[in-house]
Amino acid sequence: MRNSLPRQVSEASFNKALDGFGAIAGKVQVKTSAADLDSYRDPFALGMEESDASAAVTPASVEEVQAIVRVANEYRIPLWTVSTGRNFAYGGAAPRLPGSVILDLKRLNRIIDVNEELAYAFVEPGVTYFDLYAHFKNKGIKLWIDPPAPGWGSVVGNTLERGFGYTPYGDHAAVQCGMEVVLANGELIRTGMGAMTDNVSWPLYKPGYGPSYDAMFMQSNFGIVTKMGVWLMPQPDTALLCTAKFHHESDLELIVDTLRPLRLNQTIQNNAVIEGPVRWAAGVSTRDQWYQGDGAMPRTAIETMIRELGIGWWNLRFGLYGPSEIVDANYRIVKKALAKILGAELSAKKYHHDEPTGGGDKLMVGIPNLAAFQMLDWRGGNGAHIDFSPICPATGRDAVRQYQMVQARANECGIDYYGGFTAGTRHLHHVFAAIFDRNNIQHCAQVATLFKALIADARKAGYGEYRTHLHHMDQVANQYDFNSHALLRMSEAIKDALDPAGILSPGKQGIWPRALRDFKP
Amino acid sequence: MRNSLPRQVSEASFNKALDGFGAIAGKVQVKTSAADLDSYRDPFALGMEESDASAAVTPASVEEVQAIVRVANEYRIPLWTVSTGRNFAYGGAAPRLPGSVILDLKRLNRIIDVNEELAYAFVEPGVTYFDLYAHFKNKGIKLWIDPPAPGWGSVVGNTLERGFGYTPYGDHAAVQCGMEVVLANGELIRTGMGAMTDNVSWPLYKPGYGPSYDAMFMQSNFGIVTKMGVWLMPQPDTALLCTAKFHHESDLELIVDTLRPLRLNQTIQNNAVIEGPVRWAAGVSTRDQWYQGDGAMPRTAIETMIRELGIGWWNLRFGLYGPSEIVDANYRIVKKALAKILGAELSAKKYHHDEPTGGGDKLMVGIPNLAAFQMLDWRGGNGAHIDFSPICPATGRDAVRQYQMVQARANECGIDYYGGFTAGTRHLHHVFAAIFDRNNIQHCAQVATLFKALIADARKAGYGEYRTHLHHMDQVANQYDFNSHALLRMSEAIKDALDPAGILSPGKQGIWPRALRDFKP
Repeated sequence: MRNSLPRQVSEASFNKALDGFGAIAGKVQVKTSAADLDSYRDPFALGMEESDASAAVTPASVEEVQAIVRVANEYRIPLWTVSTGRNFAYGGAAPRLPGSVILDLKRLNRIIDVNEELAYAFVEPGVTYFDLYAHFKNKGIKLWIDPPAPGWGSVVGNTLERGFGYTPYGDHAAVQCGMEVVLANGELIRTGMGAMTDNVSWPLYKPGYGPSYDAMFMQSNFGIVTKMGVWLMPQPDTALLCTAKFHHESDLELIVDTLRPLRLNQTIQNNAVIEGPVRWAAGVSTRDQWYQGDGAMPRTAIETMIRELGIGWWNLRFGLYGPSEIVDANYRIVKKALAKILGAELSAKKYHHDEPTGGGDKLMVGIPNLAAFQMLDWRGGNGAHIDFSPICPATGRDAVRQYQMVQARANECGIDYYGGFTAGTRHLHHVFAAIFDRNNIQHCAQVATLFKALIADARKAGYGEYRTHLHHMDQVANQYDFNSHALLRMSEAIKDALDPAGILSPGKQGIWPRALRDFKP
Repeated sequence: MRNSLPRQVSEASFNKALDGFGAIAGKVQVKTSAADLDSYRDPFALGMEESDASAAVTPASVEEVQAIVRVANEYRIPLWTVSTGRNFAYGGAAPRLPGSVILDLKRLNRIIDVNEELAYAFVEPGVTYFDLYAHFKNKGIKLWIDPPAPGWGSVVGNTLERGFGYTPYGDHAAVQCGMEVVLANGELIRTGMGAMTDNVSWPLYKPGYGPSYDAMFMQSNFGIVTKMGVWLMPQPDTALLCTAKFHHESDLELIVDTLRPLRLNQTIQNNAVIEGPVRWAAGVSTRDQWYQGDGAMPRTAIETMIRELGIGWWNLRFGLYGPSEIVDANYRIVKKALAKILGAELSAKKYHHDEPTGGGDKLMVGIPNLAAFQMLDWRGGNGAHIDFSPICPATGRDAVRQYQMVQARANECGIDYYGGFTAGTRHLHHVFAAIFDRNNIQHCAQVATLFKALIADARKAGYGEYRTHLHHMDQVANQYDFNSHALLRMSEAIKDALDPAGILSPGKQGIWPRALRDFKP
């Protein structure tokens, strides 16, 4: 059985294009049966809004990618590019435009260059955090990776979506340096110093000469990234893994305001995480241990859960890194600062280059793991989650406002507040995950209602999302409305200039090619 | 007397355009006489390659900039935008295309917002480092600015050219967050979170939603930046200003290799500077004290100068910042590391929030000054300099290679090696300044010959410049040649899409609009 073809593409054109793809990558690298395409469906879809691919092709080289793009241009085939397709909670590998052909880069999986002296790696899109970690272990390379939670995805893919991790190199977009990109016309460009053939500074100095484009290829559909440089943290002498528990829901404001100066002056160098009780509890228990009713967990059940698990209402995790005398001094500084919050309990353990037990601790010392998936069991059944992630200024009052807003709306829709804040220096990533049972129709309906409301609530309060699920991409794009969407119009002008046939990832982040601009499925 | 008009613009069209500009900004804001336009000439030009403006207009608001751009579109008038025009050593305020009209933004000089809590400022292009510093002093705001040397220029302008400074916030492009830009069609966009009307995170989180464009507007001619956010460093508790002298020319390799891990692990947080003997000596003496002959200073004279001034062959400056116990611990770490270099002399002084004496020290604690101009007196006469600034990997062998290459070529052309390395984490900015007397025809000829050779030498060795003088913009652009200049072609495609009439800063960094692409004056 076959899925639907792309819009306005005839069966004949489609077949010719697939023949072309097969001639380039090999026939077995082109998949068309619904069964084969199952792995490209959104694993956490709410059911009613599926967006299936018509085919998938898995090239093995940059030259094959270029050739595929040229064929796609000829037959106007929309290509939805994924590195490894692990963008779970935001749509997985599924395309925005139904009928798109998935261009799956998982076979471009070479670790091209690792330089321990200058602390960087150059990788292809198919390289996962696990791959890079294993490579370093095998070769005894004393560099850390910075895995997101979970760590099974692509280094390139996560960076392009502006994912983040939990070591001091947690801002993935910020530690990226140098790209190779296939444009929609099949041309190959290199950004930054790579624009000069054989320039030795490609992975070392970002901007290059003239306009710099790396950030323009993130969350975008202007090109297909086939190589990327990432800066890596040299293994520090010492890492101290710290946890603090806070006992009052109202502590959030002071936690954020205490943390901000410590992040700004680099006492705390990593993306510290402030986790709500359900987020912590979902790592070590399931919901039915605490509450069996429908609707959101009531406050009394949450309080019992907090008490019995011995956790805080808010739980802070952060790391301290460096020579041990620096780490010790910084620990004293943090301890003194946190002591101002009544009842705060700070604890710490040294990391000794053997694996710490918890998944969260591992992330803070660059060890990829899948512990985060424990959350899927929270509500039982066919567990899934969709994430809502507005950017929050790093002030206590904004954090409280966002927390109250999201928590109230989630509870109103019968969903628990599973959330927390990841602390950059001047902003927080507020990440709320709606956990649900995909087999439960009521859950799915609740989550669908909830998300539309959350996105609207945030906009009303002056907040915007940094990333969103496929199905909300247009809704969110529409909120970036300054001067009647002038920035989106500029994106569209660039899209039309670089991809006149509109073949690359139509609709990604709300950017549609000219031919589909009034359609927007 | 009038300068030449822009190419292919009739006297009648030009006059109509100027009338239009006058109607928008006020007649007195439009200058056309050669005398009035003198301040827009390259103050350090070599004489034979002048590129004069035909007029200048100084709007006072964003709306006026938009209106001027619309008029320029109508009459096809090339506009060369400057913030304050202090891009000395790279062309000053002079345009790349002779006859361009200077769009001088110095009257857009509002400090729009300063937030001490979240440590940022939002400024217009006319705000200088001196202005921002004075504002903080007046208001008692405990934030540091990060001035380049010298500090009289525009914060926006320096950032757009990817200038750098000497505090831990020295990478100006990296600490920029949020832009407002007038496009060639007169449309106003805001980047990042600013693309959402009234979003409170505009100055806090860089990328926004979808493709991010800030870096694309740097060293570019795609738009006119009218507002910019810059992150600022909160005043640290302590700053320790450190200097190390090294006595052998051959120490350079080990200095760089010792510094790199200290920069990578953030023991040294700021852009440490490694200065050659002439660069240090030019701050405290003039050349004729040491040598009166023609041609480059001979080695014996340099050695005498080093001995009598009590300086090193190489001189390292860096700062340590933070709580005093952290600073003290870091100082011990640096001291131990530098002790491996035979004869290294390390010294340090605490900064007590009163002004230190030296201009270089001031820069490391965020105090703008003009001490760098002392260098102009080095050779006497009508002192000027042009800078050559290749990016160098942060390894001793690359630094030595670049130093030897530049020094030999400079001396061959009769010019002293006035240079040094500013240490980013994985790269060094190698900056060599050719100092000359503008009134000396022989000097000017030597420098012209030298620069063509230096740029070619660097390319041959696999190095590229991060920035260059107007007259070398095409030569350098031509070196970024990967895949037959594929990146430049992409820049041209974007240029044509965003600025079809080709009115914004034609030729900047080698990007020409379609109509002038075969012309390139």
